[in-house]
Amino acid sequence: MTRQELTDIIFAKKSVLCVGLDSELSKIPAHVRAGRSVEDAIFEFNKAIIDATLPYTVAYKPNLAFYEAKGLAGMSALYRTVSYIRSLKEPVFIIADAKRADIGNTSRLYASAFFGDGISTPDFDAVTIAPYMGVDSVSPFLGFEGRWAVLLALTSNPGANDFQMIESADGQLFEKVLQQSKTWGNESNLMYVVGATRAEMLKKIRSIVPEHFLLIPGVGAQGGDMNEVLKNGWNKSGGLLINASRSIIFASTEDDFALAAKTEAERMQKEMEAFINQNM
Amino acid sequence: MTRQELTDIIFAKKSVLCVGLDSELSKIPAHVRAGRSVEDAIFEFNKAIIDATLPYTVAYKPNLAFYEAKGLAGMSALYRTVSYIRSLKEPVFIIADAKRADIGNTSRLYASAFFGDGISTPDFDAVTIAPYMGVDSVSPFLGFEGRWAVLLALTSNPGANDFQMIESADGQLFEKVLQQSKTWGNESNLMYVVGATRAEMLKKIRSIVPEHFLLIPGVGAQGGDMNEVLKNGWNKSGGLLINASRSIIFASTEDDFALAAKTEAERMQKEMEAFINQNM
Repeated sequence: MTRQELTDIIFAKKSVLCVGLDSELSKIPAHVRAGRSVEDAIFEFNKAIIDATLPYTVAYKPNLAFYEAKGLAGMSALYRTVSYIRSLKEPVFIIADAKRADIGNTSRLYASAFFGDGISTPDFDAVTIAPYMGVDSVSPFLGFEGRWAVLLALTSNPGANDFQMIESADGQLFEKVLQQSKTWGNESNLMYVVGATRAEMLKKIRSIVPEHFLLIPGVGAQGGDMNEVLKNGWNKSGGLLINASRSIIFASTEDDFALAAKTEAERMQKEMEAFINQNM
Repeated sequence: MTRQELTDIIFAKKSVLCVGLDSELSKIPAHVRAGRSVEDAIFEFNKAIIDATLPYTVAYKPNLAFYEAKGLAGMSALYRTVSYIRSLKEPVFIIADAKRADIGNTSRLYASAFFGDGISTPDFDAVTIAPYMGVDSVSPFLGFEGRWAVLLALTSNPGANDFQMIESADGQLFEKVLQQSKTWGNESNLMYVVGATRAEMLKKIRSIVPEHFLLIPGVGAQGGDMNEVLKNGWNKSGGLLINASRSIIFASTEDDFALAAKTEAERMQKEMEAFINQNM
């Protein structure tokens, strides 16, 4: 999906909501699991969540760990989920939250694992990438029309303090990652992960990458403040994908899980709409 | 596999050789691919390489990218490869070169994806981990008896210069990664990736982590000097796993590929043996 297409969806839906499909089997409602294989249970859960949340959602973001943890059954459920989303009439952005990166010839293979044809490998729009290995580990993801690398800049977890905040002559490490990497790609093939629990850092980040899209995890269960994120992160293209995972998909673990997911997604979208109406 | 068991294999085989199973389908000899499914072709190739190289090898290291690039067929070939190695009478160390890491609850899922029961998920001994997200992204891999995290410290690719060498008050970033992370685990559950193209850095690294095992990629096709690595990296437990991938598994792409792999593995092992005999 191109930058313009993504922006169009954001303005049409008045939403920057990304739903994280962190579909951990043990948290899937018992009645969805009952009588189903692992693969079918995960897929049917995802399908119900997608059907319920699609009107409010511009992106879905399955985290690979939740699927790999269930082996081939989990991976097959993931592939079927991506195919299902692609089969819908509505264009939606799909991010593989995989945090990959390796030396150049290996990153090229990872790119083909995620930027596939939808048959032998799934056709994600984007994949999250870890920056530690530098330019040749990231560049192979940047050569595909309408596909994106989403590079970790500042994450929302406690361990973000260990290395990302280290001070050097060029500022903190996450600033250096932004400054350096923006020369490798552009605002049409490169986004950044910025943890919402650090919304106060968004101004600083926006001064380095004013035009790029930012994927913001940590709103919802992780406690980030959505209005702060919108205020400090929004740009004329939208420029934001705000992710919520557990707070939506596990809003209820009873029979009404899909309705509860819809209600929470709609609640978030309405908050986004109020902001977007004032800022478009 | 415990540290002591790994050391025992090293001294028994007089080898620190790790064979990287970067089994890219398009490089697999035509006669192995002929008439076989993708899954079977990759598996049969790996099996032939393993059978040929096992006497000289203490560890196998499939890189996940090469399998994920072939979708479910590739992943299934990977799982079968790990099961095949486990079915052999000889204990061998198996590393998932996956370069994973995510926030704590997600890294826990990745750990279960790689430290499995060998049925629904493969039972690797170790998985490579990217350090950018810090302590809670690494710790979940450290809580399994006889299983290991192999943390990226200094890699062998050109992009290693982008961030890993950044100077801060505590030295370069890779030094900070070593200093900080060694307090999270110990020399029985944590190893480090150190690129062999920088053998001159090994002394510096050994002064920070004298006891830990180091996984050294970049010998062979990437051009590192093995004797320099042995001289500067060896410790009383062995302390090294020196990886070669393409230079062994694709030593020939003709009918004699397995024999050529054996010859190259044996050549490397003999060089290691000469050093080990003088240093045990």
